[in-house]
Amino acid sequence: MTDKTVRLGVLGLGTVGAGTVKLLQDNAESIAAKTGARFTVVAASARDITKQRDCDLEGVTLTTDPFEVVNADVDVVVELIGGYDLARELALAAIQQGKHFVTANKALIAKHGNELFAEAEKTGALVAYEASVAGGIPVIKALREGLAGNEISQLAGIINGTTNFILTEMRDKGRDFADVLAEAQALGYAEADPTFDVGGIDAAHKLVILTSLAFGIPLNFDGAYIEGIEAITTEDVNLAGELGYKLKHLGIARQTEAGVEMRVHPALVPESHLIAKVDGVMNAVLVNGNFVGETLYYGPGAGAGPTASAVVADILDVARQLGSAKENTIANSGYTAGLSNAAEVLPAEAFNCEYYLKLSVQDESGALAQVTSVLADASVSIDAVVQHEPKGESACATLALITHEVNEAQLNTAIQALEGLDIVAGNVTRMRVASF
Amino acid sequence: MTDKTVRLGVLGLGTVGAGTVKLLQDNAESIAAKTGARFTVVAASARDITKQRDCDLEGVTLTTDPFEVVNADVDVVVELIGGYDLARELALAAIQQGKHFVTANKALIAKHGNELFAEAEKTGALVAYEASVAGGIPVIKALREGLAGNEISQLAGIINGTTNFILTEMRDKGRDFADVLAEAQALGYAEADPTFDVGGIDAAHKLVILTSLAFGIPLNFDGAYIEGIEAITTEDVNLAGELGYKLKHLGIARQTEAGVEMRVHPALVPESHLIAKVDGVMNAVLVNGNFVGETLYYGPGAGAGPTASAVVADILDVARQLGSAKENTIANSGYTAGLSNAAEVLPAEAFNCEYYLKLSVQDESGALAQVTSVLADASVSIDAVVQHEPKGESACATLALITHEVNEAQLNTAIQALEGLDIVAGNVTRMRVASF
Repeated sequence: MTDKTVRLGVLGLGTVGAGTVKLLQDNAESIAAKTGARFTVVAASARDITKQRDCDLEGVTLTTDPFEVVNADVDVVVELIGGYDLARELALAAIQQGKHFVTANKALIAKHGNELFAEAEKTGALVAYEASVAGGIPVIKALREGLAGNEISQLAGIINGTTNFILTEMRDKGRDFADVLAEAQALGYAEADPTFDVGGIDAAHKLVILTSLAFGIPLNFDGAYIEGIEAITTEDVNLAGELGYKLKHLGIARQTEAGVEMRVHPALVPESHLIAKVDGVMNAVLVNGNFVGETLYYGPGAGAGPTASAVVADILDVARQLGSAKENTIANSGYTAGLSNAAEVLPAEAFNCEYYLKLSVQDESGALAQVTSVLADASVSIDAVVQHEPKGESACATLALITHEVNEAQLNTAIQALEGLDIVAGNVTRMRVASF
Repeated sequence: MTDKTVRLGVLGLGTVGAGTVKLLQDNAESIAAKTGARFTVVAASARDITKQRDCDLEGVTLTTDPFEVVNADVDVVVELIGGYDLARELALAAIQQGKHFVTANKALIAKHGNELFAEAEKTGALVAYEASVAGGIPVIKALREGLAGNEISQLAGIINGTTNFILTEMRDKGRDFADVLAEAQALGYAEADPTFDVGGIDAAHKLVILTSLAFGIPLNFDGAYIEGIEAITTEDVNLAGELGYKLKHLGIARQTEAGVEMRVHPALVPESHLIAKVDGVMNAVLVNGNFVGETLYYGPGAGAGPTASAVVADILDVARQLGSAKENTIANSGYTAGLSNAAEVLPAEAFNCEYYLKLSVQDESGALAQVTSVLADASVSIDAVVQHEPKGESACATLALITHEVNEAQLNTAIQALEGLDIVAGNVTRMRVASF
């Protein structure tokens, strides 16, 4: 059995591509001991095939045309170029030839996963995407296999390292959002255009994948509610701290009686909870199952090594199943019966949460009474309050409060009423509180 | 494909056995959607088959003879009785018939795993044991599959809930060991004979399994270094806190140039590390791989629901592979090439650690100088010191210190020298510091 050789075609030799080739080389002996197989990169594509890479490419056929790699004599196509359209075409080309397809591309799976799974159903190709969510953390395997006996009630993840780094620095060092973002860009954590990260798109891609696996619904990127961290101030971070919470940018998926909530937004997390203690660029995903209870998976969410670790885990899984009957392989989507539209993905107005509200109120007697009266009229009850005296010349005090659980549409009505009060200056800041 | 029926025989209908049957019933629809299979418990054994259980046993052939279940027409034998000898006989009987074998029994795998794997090699039976370590946390799957591309350098786990509960209470509430142990027994966390838990045997069983998976060495229970938490005082807990550490009972496996360290003992963990924040009965396992870096897996380490979750994950994995060619299945040990004795399991004298030392010293001038001089002569250098004034009538001050990394045999010599000093009263307390 140690003579089995698995032929790989690698699309993209950037950080992750080179890291994957390097891992397969560096750890070739231990991988052979575990799997009984040797892994050979037969062909690879890159935009610049003359560039020096951090891996040995001797014997690898290099090309600038990724379709040449897909069409080469390979067992598994490994897509590490990222993006939507070209990646989709390459995936379809591989899958339609019955070639197995391993990818780290969250955008591809979140947007085109349903189509890829449907095509793969016809040819029997395996589609594996562990590296698409939370980098090196084997959380897709946990959901699809390790916790497969459970019905999942909720998951919540810190699944974007850049936003977690920014929020950690804002809290620990009192720095401003813009200041930390600039540093994150200089450190290479954030792209030159950081919208995907700080605007929540990247986290939403990952959440959509986790939600589909957890609840068996189709990948539905358009159904995700997405809010970034651009509007968060150090004042919010500090007020949350005074109230006993840490501000984290979370991807949350919940199964409720009404349907599925799938939302990415800043959230106040109780300070005592383990996920509140996940700082810097690290990722973590909390999963609640009806038999297992609460579990958490923690690790590096990006970078060459961690991503290569996940890509190679998929390659080994796929390689083990080469030649298997279909009924002996795991369903690409995690659901042999197919994904089901039975559960509705809910709009934000249907969310039920506790909320953090921050208001600037005139520093006059009766102001707090007016605010609480408006909330009481809207059936929003208050769990905790912090009020700060006006600073400097300002005539306004800052009032921050945590509500009990309430429907979001109902809360929005209450916020409108608050903003209509003479004693309330400007807009009310509203953030959701995570409950686990 | 949804017509596939998998026939199960369950040995033991205690908490975990009944929980497993209940999970398969409660979640039957979602499991069928995921796997395309129905799972039927055909036969089950229990000491008392008339007893009411927390699951539906209609249609299940009940017997007091577990061998009848093994010999029944079942695809998978699920062993949930625990213990060494009978469990071993049942496992061998199942495996020798080519029946797949799923177990939650850490003692069985730690002591007899090598033999079971060797027998299974002959018949092609799958042996699955996710539930044997850390309850509901899919950490065996993470090591055997999710991180399979990595060479593991170190793992460290809180893998016994009872000891973690006791240490958490000692720290958070200043309670004594004996007091908390009595409560843990009353709560059902600890057995009437708590030796397995507080003495470290249970954790060692689990560590032996994790070590074998991480490094590819045979299961070697006799090679484990085991120290319990019986001797820990609240003074130690508090001194560790003053020095910036939390006391945890860890199972640690490390690959060093000299060989493999496999050790269960109380350890000082830097307070800022995530694993230091795992409190109460929860478990967590930290795994360091050469490409992924540091990952952590957290969840409930015991109980009917979490254990059933892991048992069922194994049942689903095994069911998916029914009828597979051997080369399409994962090796029971995680190593297709077999486990290798190449790496020596090291004795305690070969460990290299930082250490915590606590001494009672006469409260006279020059005492600290004498202690540091003895340590310097033994080439033990000091990283941090805390000294407490004598309490009440005592003529002795308490001195606690953290050393830099040093070889344990060398440290033992230094401790002997310290204990020979006139100014040192009684024995020196010595604990290891965990470094990740």
